[in-house]
Amino acid sequence: MSEVDVLIVGAGPAGLMLALWMARLGVKTRIVDKRTDKIFSGQADGFQVRTLEILDSFGIGERVWKEANHLLEVSFWNPDENGQIRRDGRAPDTIPNISRFTESVMHQGRMEAFFLDAIKASTSPKHPPIQVERCIMPTSLDIREDLVDDENAYPVEVTLRYLSEDEATPTSRLSNLQDGLFRSNLTASDTESIIEKTNGSCKEEKVKARYVVGCDGAHSWVRKSLGPEFAMVGESTDAIWGVLDIIPITDFPDIRNRCVVHSAESGTVMVIPRENRLVRLYIQLKEVSTEGGRFDRSQITPELIFESAQKILRPYSLRYHYIDWWTAYQIGQRSGNHFSKLDRVFLAGDAVHTHSPKAGQGMNVSMQDTYNLGWKLGLVCKGILRPEVLSTYELERKQIAKDLIAFDQKFSKMFSGRPAKDILDETGVSMNELQNAFKLSHLFTSAVGISYQPSVLTHEQQINGHTGHNDVLSPETVNRCRVGMRFASYKAVNQSDARPWEMQHQMPSDGRFRVVVFGGDISDPAQLSKVNALGDWVSKKLLPRYPRIPLSPASSPHTGLLRFTTEQDPSVIDVLLVHAAKREDIEPLRDLHEAYHPFDEKLGWDYGKVFVDGESYHEGHGRAYEGYGIDKKEGAVVIVRPDGYIGLKTRVDEADWAQIDRWFEGVVKPRAPE
Amino acid sequence: MSEVDVLIVGAGPAGLMLALWMARLGVKTRIVDKRTDKIFSGQADGFQVRTLEILDSFGIGERVWKEANHLLEVSFWNPDENGQIRRDGRAPDTIPNISRFTESVMHQGRMEAFFLDAIKASTSPKHPPIQVERCIMPTSLDIREDLVDDENAYPVEVTLRYLSEDEATPTSRLSNLQDGLFRSNLTASDTESIIEKTNGSCKEEKVKARYVVGCDGAHSWVRKSLGPEFAMVGESTDAIWGVLDIIPITDFPDIRNRCVVHSAESGTVMVIPRENRLVRLYIQLKEVSTEGGRFDRSQITPELIFESAQKILRPYSLRYHYIDWWTAYQIGQRSGNHFSKLDRVFLAGDAVHTHSPKAGQGMNVSMQDTYNLGWKLGLVCKGILRPEVLSTYELERKQIAKDLIAFDQKFSKMFSGRPAKDILDETGVSMNELQNAFKLSHLFTSAVGISYQPSVLTHEQQINGHTGHNDVLSPETVNRCRVGMRFASYKAVNQSDARPWEMQHQMPSDGRFRVVVFGGDISDPAQLSKVNALGDWVSKKLLPRYPRIPLSPASSPHTGLLRFTTEQDPSVIDVLLVHAAKREDIEPLRDLHEAYHPFDEKLGWDYGKVFVDGESYHEGHGRAYEGYGIDKKEGAVVIVRPDGYIGLKTRVDEADWAQIDRWFEGVVKPRAPE
Repeated sequence: MSEVDVLIVGAGPAGLMLALWMARLGVKTRIVDKRTDKIFSGQADGFQVRTLEILDSFGIGERVWKEANHLLEVSFWNPDENGQIRRDGRAPDTIPNISRFTESVMHQGRMEAFFLDAIKASTSPKHPPIQVERCIMPTSLDIREDLVDDENAYPVEVTLRYLSEDEATPTSRLSNLQDGLFRSNLTASDTESIIEKTNGSCKEEKVKARYVVGCDGAHSWVRKSLGPEFAMVGESTDAIWGVLDIIPITDFPDIRNRCVVHSAESGTVMVIPRENRLVRLYIQLKEVSTEGGRFDRSQITPELIFESAQKILRPYSLRYHYIDWWTAYQIGQRSGNHFSKLDRVFLAGDAVHTHSPKAGQGMNVSMQDTYNLGWKLGLVCKGILRPEVLSTYELERKQIAKDLIAFDQKFSKMFSGRPAKDILDETGVSMNELQNAFKLSHLFTSAVGISYQPSVLTHEQQINGHTGHNDVLSPETVNRCRVGMRFASYKAVNQSDARPWEMQHQMPSDGRFRVVVFGGDISDPAQLSKVNALGDWVSKKLLPRYPRIPLSPASSPHTGLLRFTTEQDPSVIDVLLVHAAKREDIEPLRDLHEAYHPFDEKLGWDYGKVFVDGESYHEGHGRAYEGYGIDKKEGAVVIVRPDGYIGLKTRVDEADWAQIDRWFEGVVKPRAPE
Repeated sequence: MSEVDVLIVGAGPAGLMLALWMARLGVKTRIVDKRTDKIFSGQADGFQVRTLEILDSFGIGERVWKEANHLLEVSFWNPDENGQIRRDGRAPDTIPNISRFTESVMHQGRMEAFFLDAIKASTSPKHPPIQVERCIMPTSLDIREDLVDDENAYPVEVTLRYLSEDEATPTSRLSNLQDGLFRSNLTASDTESIIEKTNGSCKEEKVKARYVVGCDGAHSWVRKSLGPEFAMVGESTDAIWGVLDIIPITDFPDIRNRCVVHSAESGTVMVIPRENRLVRLYIQLKEVSTEGGRFDRSQITPELIFESAQKILRPYSLRYHYIDWWTAYQIGQRSGNHFSKLDRVFLAGDAVHTHSPKAGQGMNVSMQDTYNLGWKLGLVCKGILRPEVLSTYELERKQIAKDLIAFDQKFSKMFSGRPAKDILDETGVSMNELQNAFKLSHLFTSAVGISYQPSVLTHEQQINGHTGHNDVLSPETVNRCRVGMRFASYKAVNQSDARPWEMQHQMPSDGRFRVVVFGGDISDPAQLSKVNALGDWVSKKLLPRYPRIPLSPASSPHTGLLRFTTEQDPSVIDVLLVHAAKREDIEPLRDLHEAYHPFDEKLGWDYGKVFVDGESYHEGHGRAYEGYGIDKKEGAVVIVRPDGYIGLKTRVDEADWAQIDRWFEGVVKPRAPE
């Protein structure tokens, strides 16, 4: 019986995101998947801007950004007074200025390949390699409840079964047809039948794990093994949708735009232009009915789906020579009431929430689940974080799942509905309403507007008389520093070499907490002395109390100045200063406390931690203080969690240092005596 | 005896750039190098902005851009009235707005690694792989003059000798010292002694080549084999300079800026901050004299060089723990009078020009030599280009070498000179003069201001009453479309999907010519009809006359919309339209000739060729017409060569089509009858 810190079941985007965290943090991890095959076409394809920011924090965002098709414009097509479709309006697909990225599409298989590359690149002699073990499925899972409170125990016992390649290949995939029906919710899970079929005939292995995470999809075996209270709750509608990935040959003018096309009588199509000249079409199948709960799956063919699309797009012509993939699904919205059992077994991704794919949310919310869980699990395994922090996973992510289901119900309904003929047509869907819903939901669907609840990780602090959460969220203010929300990215200029940096590039996903000191106008001696007093306190009182974290060598993908210090004095707390004085007025070695340019006997001073909110020579002015909503005179102090969310916002003044102290005390274990 | 189209001698940056072209174009090529070892530290490190543009056209610019240290600011330190150094001024290191890149530094070994990766990635089943063959040197080279005019012949016969690893390792490298003296001009060539030592004892091979290119450095064996008229011409000064790559520990405030520090009495240092906390120091060695022509090489040690730097930087402290590399050199400026023999053997890089390294020119001019030569050689080998075009290599690049030597003489002299005490001190160098020279030379050193002479490839055309070359070059106008100069990059918005693109990203180095139609305001029906008439002529008359070019699959690194057409109808001429109407006013399939959205039976229309000079949703307005200096009403037609230089600029009007015709007739062979 072998031991492992973390056992991940399922190697889709959620499982691989988690494995990447573990690789970066150097945690002993196994990841198994019952399927033999990687995904080569189809499946999920949407990347929301927050997801791209997260991928970028691991250094793989730019690979996606380069290969993906960027969705810049959405157009809305509706019937005119004669019932013929016409373009009713155009809008940006992503609200300008909420992120440096825009919504993009690329097929899931490439994303998985990028994860595998990044996991491999994170391997170092100090860290055990992590490789996906395919054709392996769990067949039993037991939690030793007497051991769950023992930090050093391995309380989860799992039996793993080694399948042959045949057994691990989904039967519907044995044909040559590139369809995704076998992963669709129209098809029952084959897990039970595989288990039954292979009973007694396969090699098995017992594994003891400190933590197990089920990233094993909508039919999650891990979820089922946890008992009936983990069942998904929710409903299905009767609507059946088909999906085609084709290279279209069409005179429809907006085929390279994201479009919502509502026909008068033939239903709705959503057009998603993809990479490599592909276009994905989501088409409502009016011909297939599920009323009564049962229908004939063989009714659904790519021809049927395609003909529906042709009807909707009339009078424009539509044909194709090349089809890449197709599937169909029934709209169902469900989520689990529990995301964790005893904070030892966790569920993530489709295993705890399913919904319709048209808003491009699935892969994103799934990866963001394990992005939220990963650093917590990893730092607990390394003895750095207090295990109580693990309970924030369910707290933070269950709400997102609920919000997602609520959004999807509203969105799908409007999407599937018949367009209203006029203002008196109450059973039809008003197209203005759809366009507005599309815009209003964008802060949620892009995930930049997500805000985590108050907890040990997100202290609500009064600052200037109001908390961040009292602000009304709007595209104009969504990037402000608010507790519970992501630390947005603005450009600031390095004090010592004049290079402008995206602030998020100074915060790679390496497991470290960041204390960002917005120093304000430090050309004012009084303000400078406050900032230096804080630096003195941080370096003499705060940092010495907390542990160091040995980092994987690939963990700082964006810092051209490789941070040697993280190898030598890898404090779990990184200190950055962003000031608002003129760059020429500050000589850092002379003016600033050494906390802001730590000295190393072999490497000299670190010039990579002080930034100016000012004009750069070639890339303009980042206007970071304005964007973050920070007062230029007084500044502020912000604690950023390892996942880039803001844990605390407070003032530079000595009176507020205790809040910083208290925050870290609740989260990070004190350094072990040496 | 084996046959090869192109034999490259020397696998430094010049040789590898050439090999990359050959790999992309699918030309049978061998590249040999006498050294066993790659470069792991030191050597050249400067990347000028034009070089970055070129590397980006092969899809490897972003790797350099990410790893390199960007030089943003230069500061000038001079003695004050008491003889103590003080910062006299700061300036941007790269003039703003001349390119999307800025000068950057990264060591040569990484560049070579990126080339090797890109060459490997260009391999396809259709193309023979190209691999560097190390420990191989030529020992004889003969040109069969009777065969040089036969396009199908292999007139160059070369003997290659296979060395053992010991023989291929430079003797001074057998110590553990990471120094570059063995490559310095202070050390004599070891080529002759290796040849003599290994006579008779090594395996040899005879190769017949259509073309041979000597990229084998300052001691070029290929150059020597061509005879005495190929000898380098020029002078050496007496000044000896030392170079150190260290991680400095210093309180000198500008150690992360590029600096020129002139001390009152102790000489000059240039500071070049590098990647990974390294800093390169160029230091004038006053203690070592070469007067009389001879000096003792053992005098030069890293300690001596370092102590000189310490003196110059006083009163600031300077020490180090880690030294990466060091070398020394004597300033010598020489170039060859001939860059080619019979257009069958060519010389490039250090083999035909050497100079001082302080302006960061060497690696750049060398790579730009073979970037200029590569497409010509490759397309001639493929039977696409007229062989006469090969003579433009010497025409275009010899002038650059001469200009470089002239610049370097002036720059080095000012740099080595004693700073003037006051305005009456005529033997001293005025510091204002130095700063001005630094700025004025930037259009040359950045290479964006380079202009190739009139030839079959660069037709001087009268447009609006004056030729491009009559303009005075300035940073404000250097990016205008001018015959002989590079096609600069501005952003324009894709008509069909609203995505903004750098125009250079639509022009990857894939061997194709581009006809860029600046259509002007095509919402004016008269202008639209001119543009469509041109499209009709291009697709019916121009394109059918010229051949197709099968491209390597990796040849379009930046086009998210993979251009399937290049596989199916890979015309050697690519047509792009950039118009100045409002994007919403144009429906491309309805309004524009099919030349601008070619139709393919299997893939439908190509949406990747029409661009708008307009506002994008997220990245502002590119103001391309303004930047290119094109009239928004009338537009213009520009022919861009495969290396991104402008071959012709003319009007959209029918009257000027004959100029386009004539240009291609002089350069490209007509399509072979099918």
